[in-house]
Amino acid sequence: MSDNKNFTLAVVPGDGIGPEVITEALKVLDAVSAQHGVTFERTEFDLGAKRWHATGETLPDAELEEIRKHDAILLGAVGDPTVPSGVLERGLLLKLRFTLDHYVNLRPSKIYPSVGSPLANPGEVDFVVVREGTEGPYVGNGGALRVGTPAEIATEVSVNTAYGVERVVRDAFARAQARPRKKLTLVHKNNVLVYAGHLWTRTVDAVKADFPDITVDYLHVDAATIFLVTDPARFDVIVTDNLFGDIITDLAAAISGGIGLAASGNINPDRTAPSMFEPVHGSAPDIAGQQKADPTAAILSTALLLDHLGLTEAAAAIEAAVTADIEERTDSVRSTSEIGDAIAKRAAG
Amino acid sequence: MSDNKNFTLAVVPGDGIGPEVITEALKVLDAVSAQHGVTFERTEFDLGAKRWHATGETLPDAELEEIRKHDAILLGAVGDPTVPSGVLERGLLLKLRFTLDHYVNLRPSKIYPSVGSPLANPGEVDFVVVREGTEGPYVGNGGALRVGTPAEIATEVSVNTAYGVERVVRDAFARAQARPRKKLTLVHKNNVLVYAGHLWTRTVDAVKADFPDITVDYLHVDAATIFLVTDPARFDVIVTDNLFGDIITDLAAAISGGIGLAASGNINPDRTAPSMFEPVHGSAPDIAGQQKADPTAAILSTALLLDHLGLTEAAAAIEAAVTADIEERTDSVRSTSEIGDAIAKRAAG
Ligand SMILES: CC(C)[C@H](C(=O)O)[C@@H](O)C(=O)O
Ligand SMILES: CC(C)[C@H](C(=O)O)[C@@H](O)C(=O)O
Repeated sequence: MSDNKNFTLAVVPGDGIGPEVITEALKVLDAVSAQHGVTFERTEFDLGAKRWHATGETLPDAELEEIRKHDAILLGAVGDPTVPSGVLERGLLLKLRFTLDHYVNLRPSKIYPSVGSPLANPGEVDFVVVREGTEGPYVGNGGALRVGTPAEIATEVSVNTAYGVERVVRDAFARAQARPRKKLTLVHKNNVLVYAGHLWTRTVDAVKADFPDITVDYLHVDAATIFLVTDPARFDVIVTDNLFGDIITDLAAAISGGIGLAASGNINPDRTAPSMFEPVHGSAPDIAGQQKADPTAAILSTALLLDHLGLTEAAAAIEAAVTADIEERTDSVRSTSEIGDAIAKRAAG
Repeated sequence: MSDNKNFTLAVVPGDGIGPEVITEALKVLDAVSAQHGVTFERTEFDLGAKRWHATGETLPDAELEEIRKHDAILLGAVGDPTVPSGVLERGLLLKLRFTLDHYVNLRPSKIYPSVGSPLANPGEVDFVVVREGTEGPYVGNGGALRVGTPAEIATEVSVNTAYGVERVVRDAFARAQARPRKKLTLVHKNNVLVYAGHLWTRTVDAVKADFPDITVDYLHVDAATIFLVTDPARFDVIVTDNLFGDIITDLAAAISGGIGLAASGNINPDRTAPSMFEPVHGSAPDIAGQQKADPTAAILSTALLLDHLGLTEAAAAIEAAVTADIEERTDSVRSTSEIGDAIAKRAAG
């Protein structure tokens, strides 16, 4: 563990544009580290498509235990068309999130005035989605019978526990408490998924008693997508399950500056294992290796990482650098590393 | 059964704004029926919140069997805040969809040039979502243990069969075949829900062989929400599971003229039971009984109903009347019945 100055960082560049955006994120991290008198001793883990093709391994337990020894994890993106869908996602990314108990998947959304939104009148958008990260339909408790025959049946089980729901709901309430608008929206589908939905609804109702100054409302996930395009400014903190959170955070990213800006933290609030920070975007194999990817989401994920480690000033320096960079964006196209250079220079002050 | 001139129609106005919009839909249906020499003998079924409060019943089997005898069903909206969430949805709406084997939930999306979209540059949007209607996480195979205790566990099981997936995929391919662009997009989450997702993916791959001139692509549901706001014109026919279809069709409605225009058909293509037509919107209890609801979605659902019964000219008359009405909309607010009157008048020619 760190002495609050010298940290260890596990780096998983991953697939597609992952390595490119991570290079820039580390460049910016170096710039602010020097400035704020901290160090990050980095260990890179070669995990993803190349490794899988070479060895058939996604994330061996021994390596997971190595990763666990670090103060934090920075991840690029996972998934590759040359690997069967799900192998890397389930075997690497979700294995990390589940084993390291990342039960808060934090995804802020903000519209920067200078960045176009596909919405004609987005209004002032500044909300954060607290997506549950260790339960729901993501648990991998599915199965199939008679595969490939006309009698095939495939199931997926969503598992939801009072233990798992309450801890993420409490975290979301605490985050709402720390924000000026003090509003929490539960997003679920409790009129159809009645067992899971009622557990979520009852839990929010119960925890509310401990947070009397938070305004709480509820939206079905389908209605939430409507509000995300017609009135996104209505949202402050959203708490939702793993799958609904996956869906609405991509939509949230799209309406607010695009997936190139959306950062995320897979957080273990109890600090029993390192938290992991990654852009919301995927590996985008179609543009990989071409210096076309926007590294801003990875860079902002690094700010979330610093914040989680208590380095709030360094985090703020990155955020300010990104904001300044975004505000001065023009139509001229910059390469991945040009964007990284520009933000690193600003962040170094 | 009908003689292709005289039909029987089961009408379920339901809750909230349901009765108001159904009144207008029937007004328009009357107008075109007279015009096209057909009749609809209507039976209204008093189902929904009032009935549940009075008798505790949602949809008794005997009444379901009565409904089944009709040529088609027109439904307003179901769900009411005075009834526990899920009781009417599961006990009435989903019971109808499942028992009557409505495996194709058809939801067209179109941007009318005269209607504002929340998107700045929506482009030419004209696609249709074929949402599976009888499987997936909607099957109601959930449960809960130790409810209300800290040890509670709640599960929801998504059930997917080759039988169920293939028939809806075939229907979607056939619809793509009948459209000029001949494009089909499968939306799922096969990198996480690998058992269900791979069944869907393999099925689309297999059925594709029978439709060689259809272009097929695949999107994860999270990515699909991005494209729905950044490039909705890319879509032609989308085929997807019950839950993903629920979510993306609300989003689709929102970007294309709003939920006030979105029609749907719950179709049994094998005609072993009557199909059911309903607006995509919910019961909107906040504006119920105030003549504020837009009945256009219910009216367009009636056009889908006529189309399903082979009355294509009558269906086209309604669609033309709605298009004309929409094109001449101004900022002045009209009541539910004023909109219905205007469309009925146009539809009567
Ligand atoms: C890659 C995939 C498994 C992942 C998810 O579904 O969580 C991604 O979409 C995300 O949102 O981080
Ligand atoms: C009311 C609800 C059960 C229903 C659904 O989830 O299917 C509605 O949202 C719809 O889309 O028709």
